Amino acid sequence: MTERRISRADRAQLAMMLEVCAFPKPGNVDRCHDYPTTRLEHFLASAILARPALEKAERGEGSVGQLILEAIECTHVHAGGNTHFGAFILLIPLVLGHDIPGACRVVADTTTDDAVRFYQAFAKTQVRVLSHDDLDVHDPAAIEELKRRQMTLADVMLYSARNDMVAREWVNGFSLTRRGADLLHAYGGGCGGVTGAFIDLLASEPDTFVVKKHGPDVAAMTMRKAQEVRDGLRDIAAFDQECIDAGINPGSIADIIIASLYIALGEGWAWDC
Amino acid sequence: MTERRISRADRAQLAMMLEVCAFPKPGNVDRCHDYPTTRLEHFLASAILARPALEKAERGEGSVGQLILEAIECTHVHAGGNTHFGAFILLIPLVLGHDIPGACRVVADTTTDDAVRFYQAFAKTQVRVLSHDDLDVHDPAAIEELKRRQMTLADVMLYSARNDMVAREWVNGFSLTRRGADLLHAYGGGCGGVTGAFIDLLASEPDTFVVKKHGPDVAAMTMRKAQEVRDGLRDIAAFDQECIDAGINPGSIADIIIASLYIALGEGWAWDC
Repeated sequence: MTERRISRADRAQLAMMLEVCAFPKPGNVDRCHDYPTTRLEHFLASAILARPALEKAERGEGSVGQLILEAIECTHVHAGGNTHFGAFILLIPLVLGHDIPGACRVVADTTTDDAVRFYQAFAKTQVRVLSHDDLDVHDPAAIEELKRRQMTLADVMLYSARNDMVAREWVNGFSLTRRGADLLHAYGGGCGGVTGAFIDLLASEPDTFVVKKHGPDVAAMTMRKAQEVRDGLRDIAAFDQECIDAGINPGSIADIIIASLYIALGEGWAWDC
Repeated sequence: MTERRISRADRAQLAMMLEVCAFPKPGNVDRCHDYPTTRLEHFLASAILARPALEKAERGEGSVGQLILEAIECTHVHAGGNTHFGAFILLIPLVLGHDIPGACRVVADTTTDDAVRFYQAFAKTQVRVLSHDDLDVHDPAAIEELKRRQMTLADVMLYSARNDMVAREWVNGFSLTRRGADLLHAYGGGCGGVTGAFIDLLASEPDTFVVKKHGPDVAAMTMRKAQEVRDGLRDIAAFDQECIDAGINPGSIADIIIASLYIALGEGWAWDC
């Protein structure tokens, strides 16, 4: 059936599409659930509109910080708030580097200019951050501080890793991305595979987006309930509704699953079954 | 909020995405319904993977027949059967020509080579056709016959117009596409606008895809029931379920609504509201 090669940019876009469509996915936007201001169409529009930045990454045109900024500029055209910022932090180095080892080389080669571009991208989003320190992205002086300290983007991610599992992927060789891809292979193709991998990852790590929004106790409780779903003790639909009612949306796990889908699709994981 | 220009290729992809997500849309794949072998993800993957052909059309690289063939080759990578063949027949001339007057010029300039490429594209799809004549697309001799008669692609569409409302758009200056865009503006932005325009168009014309699959009586009955939905006499969700149970999927109206969305988006219709 295949008439053409699926490019890395295609794969990144398919990964974003498949992640947001999969259901039930406790607490997050999916085929069956919107949030009042962020809907399925916002995520799908973002997946479509990211194309120019992803194509540039595939051609190796531009640095990782510049391309994350371009992805945000490409997709920041709707009123749905941040949709894929975390996903781009993972996808851009993966597309630039082809795979996880290549992405690790991209990370190792980042510069202070990458860090500056990343802060510029961050400032354009409405991403939840912990604003308690001297590198607050909402503080214009932060960029001067970055330059003074000659911090690379890898340094920034190391700085953020304690509080942010997406940043931690840069530090830890994309280990959860790899684990998510292995879970996709284990749970099998299609929507059921995505849901299975999502629940399993959510059961193994507290989602740092939930930590930032609701605190560590809620994140830990969400992880424990995901374990019960994984172990067949708790109904996934009821858990989904409970998360939605409480506004508990594990967005960082979703970002990592997108990166995992990018990897798994390149390894022959079947979305279409 | 807009950080970049939305290109015509973007608009075509957003149109495909917005059409398939809109619900309830009687009988067709939508956010809430799949068919066993054709699912939401197939349509969304097709919208994503069509990009190279749409970009070429935007740059004016290639003839309309060649680009329809390329769109089919780009998207024919899944097992979900035909998803957007009818939509590409409308979108490719619209993207090439920018708007409806430009698309009409593209149609007027088609050649026999366009017709041959179109037949090659048709042969790659599993599109339902009436196979009763000497230009059957499944007959390899048909291409020789096209060449012998020196038929252009516009001639082929004229030939098909009686039985196919998508072909009829080429003959009639994209009149239903225009009407659909006007309906989108009238019904307003977002998912509700798409559903309103879909029902209203379905209420005004028998869907020729339904005619080919189920015969003219079923298509006429579907149109009458759509009129009742439009007039508030029949529940849309019940009508949707009835269509799905009977396999009545008005695919040609959906193709035209995609073209209408492409036009309306260019006229400021708000998908994001």
